[in-house]
Amino acid sequence: MRLSTSSLTLYLTLFVLLAFVHALPYGNFWNNWPSTTTPQPVTQPQPQSQPNPQPQTKPTRKFRCGDEPGSYCGIYPPKQTTVSLTQKRLFSHSKMVANKYKLAIIGSGNWGSAIARIAGMNVQRYPELFEEQVNMYVYEEQVDGKPLTEIINKQHENVKYLPGITLPDNIVAVNDVVKAASGADLLIFVLPHQFIPGICTQLRGKVSKNARALSMIKGVEVKDSNIRIFADVIEEILGCKTMALSGANIANEVAQDKFSETTIGYREGDLESAEIFHKVFDRPTFKVGMIEDVAGVSLCGALKNVVAIGAGFCDGLEWGSNAKAAIMRIGLMEMKNFSEEFFEGVKAETFTETSAGIADLITTCFGGRNRKCAEAFVKTGKSFDVLEKELLNGQKLQGSETAREVYQFLAARGKVDDFPLFKAVYNISFEGGVAQDLASKL
Amino acid sequence: MRLSTSSLTLYLTLFVLLAFVHALPYGNFWNNWPSTTTPQPVTQPQPQSQPNPQPQTKPTRKFRCGDEPGSYCGIYPPKQTTVSLTQKRLFSHSKMVANKYKLAIIGSGNWGSAIARIAGMNVQRYPELFEEQVNMYVYEEQVDGKPLTEIINKQHENVKYLPGITLPDNIVAVNDVVKAASGADLLIFVLPHQFIPGICTQLRGKVSKNARALSMIKGVEVKDSNIRIFADVIEEILGCKTMALSGANIANEVAQDKFSETTIGYREGDLESAEIFHKVFDRPTFKVGMIEDVAGVSLCGALKNVVAIGAGFCDGLEWGSNAKAAIMRIGLMEMKNFSEEFFEGVKAETFTETSAGIADLITTCFGGRNRKCAEAFVKTGKSFDVLEKELLNGQKLQGSETAREVYQFLAARGKVDDFPLFKAVYNISFEGGVAQDLASKL
Repeated sequence: MRLSTSSLTLYLTLFVLLAFVHALPYGNFWNNWPSTTTPQPVTQPQPQSQPNPQPQTKPTRKFRCGDEPGSYCGIYPPKQTTVSLTQKRLFSHSKMVANKYKLAIIGSGNWGSAIARIAGMNVQRYPELFEEQVNMYVYEEQVDGKPLTEIINKQHENVKYLPGITLPDNIVAVNDVVKAASGADLLIFVLPHQFIPGICTQLRGKVSKNARALSMIKGVEVKDSNIRIFADVIEEILGCKTMALSGANIANEVAQDKFSETTIGYREGDLESAEIFHKVFDRPTFKVGMIEDVAGVSLCGALKNVVAIGAGFCDGLEWGSNAKAAIMRIGLMEMKNFSEEFFEGVKAETFTETSAGIADLITTCFGGRNRKCAEAFVKTGKSFDVLEKELLNGQKLQGSETAREVYQFLAARGKVDDFPLFKAVYNISFEGGVAQDLASKL
Repeated sequence: MRLSTSSLTLYLTLFVLLAFVHALPYGNFWNNWPSTTTPQPVTQPQPQSQPNPQPQTKPTRKFRCGDEPGSYCGIYPPKQTTVSLTQKRLFSHSKMVANKYKLAIIGSGNWGSAIARIAGMNVQRYPELFEEQVNMYVYEEQVDGKPLTEIINKQHENVKYLPGITLPDNIVAVNDVVKAASGADLLIFVLPHQFIPGICTQLRGKVSKNARALSMIKGVEVKDSNIRIFADVIEEILGCKTMALSGANIANEVAQDKFSETTIGYREGDLESAEIFHKVFDRPTFKVGMIEDVAGVSLCGALKNVVAIGAGFCDGLEWGSNAKAAIMRIGLMEMKNFSEEFFEGVKAETFTETSAGIADLITTCFGGRNRKCAEAFVKTGKSFDVLEKELLNGQKLQGSETAREVYQFLAARGKVDDFPLFKAVYNISFEGGVAQDLASKL
């Protein structure tokens, strides 16, 4: 085949075209493509701790309170609240009256009554958003010959569990849990944990699956090598999304409007519902933080009591401030590590930065019945069974119970030795371990 | 131009070639190139907080105590200690005797004497690693007509600053700081911060640049819009790498061997030197954690006192446990945020997980003179100047001084409003702000 002039011209044209096709996009690709052979120089963080003359770019972290959209655990309310009073309701309910959320409180003990007072005041503050009447389920009992519900509805005071504190008029005591929860869009569970399965079973099918529940239950449900938080128990039985609230919240102080913070842990992607509960609770003296971590918030409320037993032992031994702070620090780390190991989606910051975490641990290790009974345990040498009868009218101490459950769970998984404080608390509480050996076990 | 058959063949050949060239690499590129139009499905983390039946892969974090090689802030000693007693010395010194580290303690107050006791016992525990004699610089003063150095060297007790506690025989009091530090490979600075520049200037050129210093100084040096930790001041003057030690360490409790933890913050890449200091301090009742963060450890020791003033106000106002825990939590976050903003390389975990951070904050907010004076400030209405005279024999209160310095620094940088607790503490302490308004300012 002989090349004609025209063929040669064509050859050259196509050669140039080919070269052009190669050069342009490839050049772009090589410039942008992450190269494995010639890594880009990485700017190393400066080791010196000199102050920066100019504000610097902060290091990226997986999660920082306040930085990640929709995640904040501080006391400050969200800068941009997505709940507007006029917007379409986030979850609609067939019985929803005038497009307002109906709130019900399931429980009426010391903490339940304190939180009912807050919620009752706040729904009146946002009449466009909430129905005014708030039902409160009260386990009926006779007080001075009268039904407790009748006393609460007439005197507006829970004379048995929160005496001396006036409840708002819109809190209505109801002694039938199904009636109390009827038509509710927002349900707050604030009961001793042993009543949750029974109460929720009564409510099954009576509560809209579009409703939102919030658990204030301390404690966990342990069966052999399985552990569950009560927000999950509620969610499973009722079928509606359930968040959790916990914090450094001694009920009587909250009821007296002494300054407090608390934390709502919400489900992934459910910030908007959490913001509705934020409106139910947040007040100038009761600041509500939020974090996307139901399990972490719930577990803080349960596990802190085990640490408080350790802190109480320390008080009983009169080991002083350094030792107590050390036991609290070690306890906080075990709470965090336990939760991160056995639950998905738990955030370290829930433990180390929120009211549900470090703040509640502080109040619990300095006040509270767990610390007190553990101190008496060491000083008197009496067992927790005896102390429960003498100091708590036979009520079970939550910290030692949780210590036992956590130990059994860890034993079933062969993980006891990863949690030396939890192990030592169990050993001293139930196996005759010597309290004086506590430090050497850590 | 007329096309010949050969030209046509050529055309077709090149067309096929071109198509081939396009198809192959482009196909590869499109498959690998991150597409903006068709995003790859991302595996979402499970929202459920159900326990995991199997141990799961933990989420990756920038830093986790214990996970990153050479970084641990817990109480446990490193699993693999890199210091072996027979290995080549990490930093050699021309005057090094028999290849052993010589230790000097610069300072002999309450904390200095307590730490000298620990260090004196530990160097005897490792005779292959350390020279037995430990010089302790003592500012000479007369006690009952005798020089304090003479009393210490005869009675082995610092009768003025740590009475009732026997010091090991190998602690030798020296009233000349240059003599005390002569030939030292390891220098521990444990002096009130105002003496640091003067003492270090005396030592300049007399200390090997290969030596290692450790600062136990609380407080920061603030000049207008500049802030420095004392480890940096020491390092700059002496020219030797300086780390820091801080923790929940009330001196008298440490001296009585009551259980305690502490934290060493070391320079980037200087873990091996930190491990030598770990051997100087770590004991069964004095557990030493380590973290690669000199600035964080130092700043914890300074800023906790500001928070303790806030906690003391809260005690004076009788606001209760919830409020105090809230103020401590908010304070811890401001300590962390301040340090992260103005110092490079600071780790959040130093504040939230170590003895230097959360544990020391707890002891300081429940005991200590800062809390006590702040409580009296609110209850008596007297100024800090008056209270320093009445309660502290005229000594300056560190918390209020640091609050002032931090406020001036923040004001010079226009950042005061980012730290509402620090601002409120300053405002109440020095500007006549009303303590009762504390909560509303947070």
